[in-house]
Amino acid sequence: MSDQKTAITPTRAQDFPEWYQQVVRAAELAENSDVRGCMVIKPWGYGIWERMQRGLDQMFKETGHKNAYFPLFIPLSYLAKEAQHVEGFAKECAVVTHHRLEVDHDGKLRPAPSAELAEPLVVRPTSETIIGATYAKWVQSYRDLPILINQWANVVRWEMRPRLFLRTAEFLWQEGHTAHETEAEAIEETEKMLGVYETFARDFLAVPVFTGEKSEAERFPGAVKTLCIEAMVQDHKAIQAGTSHFLGQNFAKASNIVFQSREGKQETAWTTSWGVSTRLVGTVIMAHADDDGMIVPPRIAPTHVVILPISPKPETRDAVFAAANSLAGALRKISFHGTPIEVEVDQRDIGGGTKNWEWIKKGAPIRIEIGPRDLEKGTVALARRDQSPKEKQFLPMVDVPSQIAEILQSIQDTLFERALALRDSHLCNLDTKEAFYDYFTPKNLEKPEIHGGFARSHWCESPECEAAIKEDLKVTIRCIPFHAEVEEGSCLFCGGASHRRVIFAKSY
Amino acid sequence: MSDQKTAITPTRAQDFPEWYQQVVRAAELAENSDVRGCMVIKPWGYGIWERMQRGLDQMFKETGHKNAYFPLFIPLSYLAKEAQHVEGFAKECAVVTHHRLEVDHDGKLRPAPSAELAEPLVVRPTSETIIGATYAKWVQSYRDLPILINQWANVVRWEMRPRLFLRTAEFLWQEGHTAHETEAEAIEETEKMLGVYETFARDFLAVPVFTGEKSEAERFPGAVKTLCIEAMVQDHKAIQAGTSHFLGQNFAKASNIVFQSREGKQETAWTTSWGVSTRLVGTVIMAHADDDGMIVPPRIAPTHVVILPISPKPETRDAVFAAANSLAGALRKISFHGTPIEVEVDQRDIGGGTKNWEWIKKGAPIRIEIGPRDLEKGTVALARRDQSPKEKQFLPMVDVPSQIAEILQSIQDTLFERALALRDSHLCNLDTKEAFYDYFTPKNLEKPEIHGGFARSHWCESPECEAAIKEDLKVTIRCIPFHAEVEEGSCLFCGGASHRRVIFAKSY
Repeated sequence: MSDQKTAITPTRAQDFPEWYQQVVRAAELAENSDVRGCMVIKPWGYGIWERMQRGLDQMFKETGHKNAYFPLFIPLSYLAKEAQHVEGFAKECAVVTHHRLEVDHDGKLRPAPSAELAEPLVVRPTSETIIGATYAKWVQSYRDLPILINQWANVVRWEMRPRLFLRTAEFLWQEGHTAHETEAEAIEETEKMLGVYETFARDFLAVPVFTGEKSEAERFPGAVKTLCIEAMVQDHKAIQAGTSHFLGQNFAKASNIVFQSREGKQETAWTTSWGVSTRLVGTVIMAHADDDGMIVPPRIAPTHVVILPISPKPETRDAVFAAANSLAGALRKISFHGTPIEVEVDQRDIGGGTKNWEWIKKGAPIRIEIGPRDLEKGTVALARRDQSPKEKQFLPMVDVPSQIAEILQSIQDTLFERALALRDSHLCNLDTKEAFYDYFTPKNLEKPEIHGGFARSHWCESPECEAAIKEDLKVTIRCIPFHAEVEEGSCLFCGGASHRRVIFAKSY
Repeated sequence: MSDQKTAITPTRAQDFPEWYQQVVRAAELAENSDVRGCMVIKPWGYGIWERMQRGLDQMFKETGHKNAYFPLFIPLSYLAKEAQHVEGFAKECAVVTHHRLEVDHDGKLRPAPSAELAEPLVVRPTSETIIGATYAKWVQSYRDLPILINQWANVVRWEMRPRLFLRTAEFLWQEGHTAHETEAEAIEETEKMLGVYETFARDFLAVPVFTGEKSEAERFPGAVKTLCIEAMVQDHKAIQAGTSHFLGQNFAKASNIVFQSREGKQETAWTTSWGVSTRLVGTVIMAHADDDGMIVPPRIAPTHVVILPISPKPETRDAVFAAANSLAGALRKISFHGTPIEVEVDQRDIGGGTKNWEWIKKGAPIRIEIGPRDLEKGTVALARRDQSPKEKQFLPMVDVPSQIAEILQSIQDTLFERALALRDSHLCNLDTKEAFYDYFTPKNLEKPEIHGGFARSHWCESPECEAAIKEDLKVTIRCIPFHAEVEEGSCLFCGGASHRRVIFAKSY
């Protein structure tokens, strides 16, 4: 196994963080720009994000939400409105202080001193405050509620240690912001949207997630409750892949979202916010890619099927190309989960091996080779990206259209099952401090980056124990799972009383 | 006519600019935010933009383009790379100078002096420079060309006199950026994308446009040629609704996009850029809305059909609602230009008249009323937004699904024909300075905002004549039309020789 040549060097086992960077590069997903911390999302990576957007957007609309757009800039004073929020967000952010440039005495461009803003503007790190100020104008009566709005946008959080997709200064996301008449309704919304994320992760990303609530220490600044989906990736660390916040009346009070109730009284609204970002692309890479590169789950693949016409001889070239394009046309008429199958015929004039490996590295779900001999026999060679590069199925060409959707779904299911099996095999109940510390302390120094996994352990709910564990091991509580069985136990750290297990892991 | 009560006050004839603001407000399209010059795009306005995006995006993909994403921020030094570009864009823009906030001695938030950026960043006013720097890395050989990429993004150009949709500090747009091996190919791309815009304006926006080239004075800073589509709106002014720029090698040289040619020589690429923005929403409002509010062309309508169940009596309520929802279900199965018809059943518990007028003001293409008597007769009352609010067609309910797509297309066509008729009736050839100046000088001071129209006149191609006319009348050359007949004449201003007519107008 270890001697087998792989398209990506190093392998996951050799150096997981470097493997990740190499997959992102080899699959042409993204690259660093000259602007520190800001990435360029390349067409293949952006195509994956577009399919994610399409899937999520439809689910948001089906749950009654509409899209809108709010300003990129937030006045400094808005950030200061919610006390905890300012603690969390008014730190590393991009601050606009001038609105004009001028050429100075040396002929160099500089911000014009005469164009300094009276109040600096912050490039949104998140939009609760600016959207809250708008909702306050929109809401007069209970009849104006609920407001169910989502925004697709870019946000900026200055990052000291950026990492493509996982942590970048600028990233793309959606942020839902809703306002409700009652607490119960807002909590229901918070849970409903977490459910949407869980379903989306499972059905589109082929990623099983744990759902639950964050501990206070991990909560969104200003939220009453933060719910999350947590995925395990192939180095057994956790990625927080989406969050849904019940904001109580904290932001509504700060923004003055008040309304006349059914009883004619002045009341304060209850709000929620929820979001996922381009971090999901990083999650999918770390969850599914292998030592040959990316593997894109079919439901978010920009190209489902790549057809590779193979024809070294000029005399068969036209016939092979014609057959490839004819098959492509037939496949494009087939629908996979409601959208036409996307097919690319790679007619570039480069070597067949190079071409094939490019698509393996990019992770296109299905590759179909057609050569002159296939034409004679009426067959094609079909390779699935979830199988070894050498494995091929030979199929009658006429049967491909009728089987393609099923094969795509089979790849989608295989990826999910693999991810689930990985997670299940790195998940354990740990009941003593010793076992817990042992689990999270790397033993094999040659593979420092492959971690133990997820530990379900008892915790006394004290922030001190949580902080001590984080300090010692860089291990955090990923979530307090929903529907966790009530089980009496003792806190792994202090031995204090605990009523349920929570999930601990190292995380991105 | 003038005594008739309208939903929008003032009317177009009374005060066009104020009418525009009132339509935007009444149709709930957008509003000003607390951040100067930045708008909030409300769900109905954003829904229109989403449909525009969908239509354009499909056309971009059909012409071989892929989407990607580039950084929001541009280092100051990048803007300075292209001499004319810096003149045009390094002026009113948002400048980021700090990356952290801190609390000062008085407990107030401020940009942290210790976190001043070594090089300020400009929030992109357009992305030629940052994308050029990226393409320079991607391109080594002629085999890497062409690069055909589009980006959907927000951009910021500080505006002193903002106006919702038409001119805002932040706006949403798409910017295509392509790089080519040869000049001819880049010119072909520039023209092809202008053709896409022209088709889109006609088929989706129901707006006829003139296509042509800008004079040097109106050219994009740094471009060799700027092509444009120019629409006439109802005050007879022009709106530049989209531009496509042939950039020659100007930006490629500034960014060093060089490649090894087929002959093995080092060559510089040829680039283009092209864009349309949320300004199109403003264009559509000014082109089609009337004194009762917005009229949304069906192909970009977030809701094609609104069903208004009318039932003052509780005993018929359920039956009316059931019929409305059943009809909605049947209509949603019908496709209009490849996407399902979008239907909203307005079940809100507010007066029927209020509801009806809300949808008139929003400009939903079709309203269908269903009341208890309709149920008995098996009919519905259908109203088209391109007709008077009082005009209704009574149709058997069972016939609605089979007729709906045709009615929508008929509305779409009517809007186009009206816009074309308006344009044709305010378009004239003017051959003397006197006639020209008279045409563009308001005579009726009570209607200072309704203008003459478009004048086709001779121009000697001198920037001085162009500048003098602009100075005198605020009238500019909108475009030098493609395929204009060669016609010898004399410059309207100086009498110098001219070989073709160009289009002059006041503009937004």
